[in-house]
Amino acid sequence: MPEGEFEFIARRLRPLATAEGALGLTDDAALLDPRPGHQLVLAKDAMVAGVHFLPDDPPAEIARKLLRVNLSDLAAMGAAPLGYLLALARPSAIADAWLGEFCSGLAADNAEFEIALLGGDTVATPGPLTLSLTALGEVPKGAALLRGGARPGDDLWVSGTLGDAALGLQTLQGKLEVTGEARARLIERYRLPRPRLALGQALRNIATAAIDISDGLLADLGHILEVSGVGAGLDADALPLSPAAQDLPGARDAALSGGDDYELLFTAPPERRADLEALARRLDLPLTRIGEVRAGSDLEVVDARGQRLEPRSKGWQHF
Amino acid sequence: MPEGEFEFIARRLRPLATAEGALGLTDDAALLDPRPGHQLVLAKDAMVAGVHFLPDDPPAEIARKLLRVNLSDLAAMGAAPLGYLLALARPSAIADAWLGEFCSGLAADNAEFEIALLGGDTVATPGPLTLSLTALGEVPKGAALLRGGARPGDDLWVSGTLGDAALGLQTLQGKLEVTGEARARLIERYRLPRPRLALGQALRNIATAAIDISDGLLADLGHILEVSGVGAGLDADALPLSPAAQDLPGARDAALSGGDDYELLFTAPPERRADLEALARRLDLPLTRIGEVRAGSDLEVVDARGQRLEPRSKGWQHF
Repeated sequence: MPEGEFEFIARRLRPLATAEGALGLTDDAALLDPRPGHQLVLAKDAMVAGVHFLPDDPPAEIARKLLRVNLSDLAAMGAAPLGYLLALARPSAIADAWLGEFCSGLAADNAEFEIALLGGDTVATPGPLTLSLTALGEVPKGAALLRGGARPGDDLWVSGTLGDAALGLQTLQGKLEVTGEARARLIERYRLPRPRLALGQALRNIATAAIDISDGLLADLGHILEVSGVGAGLDADALPLSPAAQDLPGARDAALSGGDDYELLFTAPPERRADLEALARRLDLPLTRIGEVRAGSDLEVVDARGQRLEPRSKGWQHF
Repeated sequence: MPEGEFEFIARRLRPLATAEGALGLTDDAALLDPRPGHQLVLAKDAMVAGVHFLPDDPPAEIARKLLRVNLSDLAAMGAAPLGYLLALARPSAIADAWLGEFCSGLAADNAEFEIALLGGDTVATPGPLTLSLTALGEVPKGAALLRGGARPGDDLWVSGTLGDAALGLQTLQGKLEVTGEARARLIERYRLPRPRLALGQALRNIATAAIDISDGLLADLGHILEVSGVGAGLDADALPLSPAAQDLPGARDAALSGGDDYELLFTAPPERRADLEALARRLDLPLTRIGEVRAGSDLEVVDARGQRLEPRSKGWQHF
């Protein structure tokens, strides 16, 4: 017989609710003590089986991805994570063992990010497994990184490497043949984002705007440009590619347009270049300058020789 | 052509996001400024079409019920509401007009409760419409009402009237024939809970434990007794019934076991009776003493003559 809701909460969820304010999940709501001088930062992302994850993805990795995409939103705002609430709409066909592994994934990331489950809700659904997570973080008052602060003359920067997650998904879908270590690395990048929390917090006094790359570099850059009311020039040959990705067909297109990388894209004045190079060394995380913010509203994508690239049916190409 | 996600957010959701910290829904996350000396209170409830609401319920009332069941959780903790985040998993068959009415319901309650949408997520689903809402409130530090504070000798109190929502649902399902004004009132109680926010806040310095009645009086009383480690005696003939409910068959059973009333059940020392009677007059909301907290762990249900009632197949009856 499958676990009932109360048993599921008691056996699986209560051990994740280690924060005092979670009240052992026995109350109607959770309590959270904000620190004086801080603002709360709130992110909420939902995921649906068959839409946002593959049905045979490992349950622990689905849980960790759900948590991490929300933590990535906090990272993009420069916030430090505090905890989260989880809503889980559960079809009857989901086995207790599946949910046990799912909760093990949350437990692993609770330890990794020093956070805890605060509360939530579990309900039955006749539809697919549907997950919604609300992550809470904090930032010193007034220090949050926003999308609207980019100014003409700022450099465009990106963390880590781009395109890996999209290539990993293509690999899982059988659209791309990759073997060995490269295959494992790309799939891991798709399944297990690494929210750039330390970077986001370090950028509070450096970056003028920031976003995490979830929809793809060009789409997310577009969000910064729109909210900031600026344009940009982007050097497609400067995009950082991983050793696993760099020789694959479509790597540059994946870096330009592929989603799910969860790296940070940010803007900063040129006089902060030395600070950012020092920060990259301190965090052991590549930070790459990929273009500049311009007046106007156009986004121009060029190659290393300054030739314009345009979107074509086969990807981004010269005219 | 149905609205895309960005258009839906811009047209329907942005007007609901009137708080400064919502950042016009343009950023990765929302900001919230807790007041000094206060704790945040966080509630999260999910609802699934066909499970938690009837498919032909009016969309505005579905939205308001979703919001209000969460506000009711805040009320039970003694919190004042601040705002909320919404995740909406949308099947393609849901029409834009339906979503427009849904958002109108949120707008009406934003005005009624002086709150605003802070952020959230909208995703596609091949399954039923699935909604998850996270409500945020605040309470002076240390003043939250919890389930665990009931002590032997405390009175058991309940607000408003009980059983109306369950009888309203039976009416909608055709299981109960009610006509005219009574029918309308019972159905309204099922569709549109009234979160007892003013009462919850006033109880901060009076009640020893509190919960909102969502699962039914006996079930929710059971939660208080379990967490507080106490028992209780309950007078089934003292339960407050509305004029619409009092002459209907099964009214007392609905009051004992029916869910969805969203009244507050709370405990308070006998020396606070005069304060609670004054509070009931000030709020123009009946508060009724329905029993007492006892040592031990038994819950005894009696009638006005002290005869014990037991659950039977036809409801609660004498031995």
